[in-house]
Amino acid sequence: MLPAMTDPADSPQPTSQVPAFMDEFSLIRRYFHHRQGDSVVLGPGDDAAILAPPVGQQLVMTQDTSLADRHFPSDMAPEDVGYRCLAVNISDLAAMGAMPLWFLLSLTLPRVDEDWLAGFSNGLFELADQAGISLVGGDITRGPLAISIQATGAVPPGQALRREGACAGDRICVGGVTGGGLLGLEQWQAGQRYGPAIEHFRRPRPQWELGMALRGQASACIDISDGVLADLNHILQASGALGACIDEASLPEDPCVLAGCSADKQRALQLQGGDDYLLLFTLPPPLPIPEGCYCLGRIEAQPGIRLRQHDGTVRALKVSGWQHF
Amino acid sequence: MLPAMTDPADSPQPTSQVPAFMDEFSLIRRYFHHRQGDSVVLGPGDDAAILAPPVGQQLVMTQDTSLADRHFPSDMAPEDVGYRCLAVNISDLAAMGAMPLWFLLSLTLPRVDEDWLAGFSNGLFELADQAGISLVGGDITRGPLAISIQATGAVPPGQALRREGACAGDRICVGGVTGGGLLGLEQWQAGQRYGPAIEHFRRPRPQWELGMALRGQASACIDISDGVLADLNHILQASGALGACIDEASLPEDPCVLAGCSADKQRALQLQGGDDYLLLFTLPPPLPIPEGCYCLGRIEAQPGIRLRQHDGTVRALKVSGWQHF
Repeated sequence: MLPAMTDPADSPQPTSQVPAFMDEFSLIRRYFHHRQGDSVVLGPGDDAAILAPPVGQQLVMTQDTSLADRHFPSDMAPEDVGYRCLAVNISDLAAMGAMPLWFLLSLTLPRVDEDWLAGFSNGLFELADQAGISLVGGDITRGPLAISIQATGAVPPGQALRREGACAGDRICVGGVTGGGLLGLEQWQAGQRYGPAIEHFRRPRPQWELGMALRGQASACIDISDGVLADLNHILQASGALGACIDEASLPEDPCVLAGCSADKQRALQLQGGDDYLLLFTLPPPLPIPEGCYCLGRIEAQPGIRLRQHDGTVRALKVSGWQHF
Repeated sequence: MLPAMTDPADSPQPTSQVPAFMDEFSLIRRYFHHRQGDSVVLGPGDDAAILAPPVGQQLVMTQDTSLADRHFPSDMAPEDVGYRCLAVNISDLAAMGAMPLWFLLSLTLPRVDEDWLAGFSNGLFELADQAGISLVGGDITRGPLAISIQATGAVPPGQALRREGACAGDRICVGGVTGGGLLGLEQWQAGQRYGPAIEHFRRPRPQWELGMALRGQASACIDISDGVLADLNHILQASGALGACIDEASLPEDPCVLAGCSADKQRALQLQGGDDYLLLFTLPPPLPIPEGCYCLGRIEAQPGIRLRQHDGTVRALKVSGWQHF
């Protein structure tokens, strides 16, 4: 923090809700002290946290920044923002087959707003408690709303799932019905605030338990942030320029989230919708499909992604991933 | 990334310098792939990194976000921005006595600017190589310039330095002459761009080797980001509402960085200047002061911070730390 750069607007805003002493340390104490796992030797409050890593395990680390109006709507409830920003990071741990352990939070806020902070931390810790992940440090600065989370998980040596490793003949599986994330976003942008797709969009459920169950089973794994086709393409490229054939008949019917959409729309959502944060993985032939998961097709040696349509004809699909920058 | 929220401005800017395909993945490959330590099993490119933690060690973790025009001037050279943002985080590891291992980088950029990125990564990796710390992951998003870095280090179990632990009678030591950070900032804001204080401000040198040497020696430690008095006060509070007496005669004379400042100005800079990123630590009486360090005074049982002036009189000092929010 550059002291000589601070101006009066940088001091805490003394409103009826916010005591004048509510500096960064007080904010952290009030909203971000929460129960922690046994591996946390020292949590927030010093220059850094001290952690005891699980003996004999490798660590898995990810970091993602979420910006208002870019990664989430700025009028989203703070509970959902807190839940969602952590979910995105836990989903990356899940994609590696890691057990969630610790996270650090860098929160950039335009102003001190106690209601917002209380809601944000409630949503954040709701998911943190479910996943057994402990907040161990971070900082709060003043600026345009942004949430940067770094998360760490553990995995037995050599058992982390990667994007590489898929082989021709492997089945392509997803951890649930995809498309709800994009449909929820479309509905949100149309002014809708309730319904199963909105719920899916507000509160994506990262699949860390599925990821851990896939250790030693899945030949490759990724979480679906860009859409099935784009993320499948990441697996294909990382596994050595392989190809894939998706079976249109295998796309699951969804009586809930996608209900009300035409068949064409459902197919487009399921194959191209992003922000689902379900796992996409490849399974060698003899292994059973885990409960709740669907097989969409197979890895093939021939490069490119193809769709076997209901009438049996096969056509090439164009992969258009989202540009991340 | 919300696909339906992207607008044309979100696509890579096809300028003469930037190929149209320069998406997040290409940017990371081009500017942020760099040699890595042996403990890095899998670096950037998958959903997360895979790390092999040093056997039998505890981990130390910190995260700090730096915003343009708040934590560094927006007209600072990108080499210095890269160096400085990493230095701030390594300094937190140093304050815990940790050996730097890995860091993740979340970079928020207003636009793709290859010259800026090349400079930024040069400065970043210059310090990373010196400190032996490996970049293992992160992301790049589009928005107001911000750099969020999470850093991890290792320390033998129970040997991490903390803010708590100081005792009455311990000597108060600093890892060098303080005040250069604030003086450099003042000179920068006055338009100056060269000189020893500017250098100190642009390229703070985090003291991870000193921190590691202080394991088992220092009773408490912190890095100076808020100024000697404010950071000493953090140690005093964490160690149980202790006090301290600073000896004015012990403030080192500095023939270089602070040269040209009056005695009063030098004292103010040394005691209240922030952004020095030197270590402030307490040493029990029999231990020798490490080379290059200075003893400024002693911890006392009586709360408050006092200054023993040149004429022998003692007066109470007001501690005014920088508000971090």
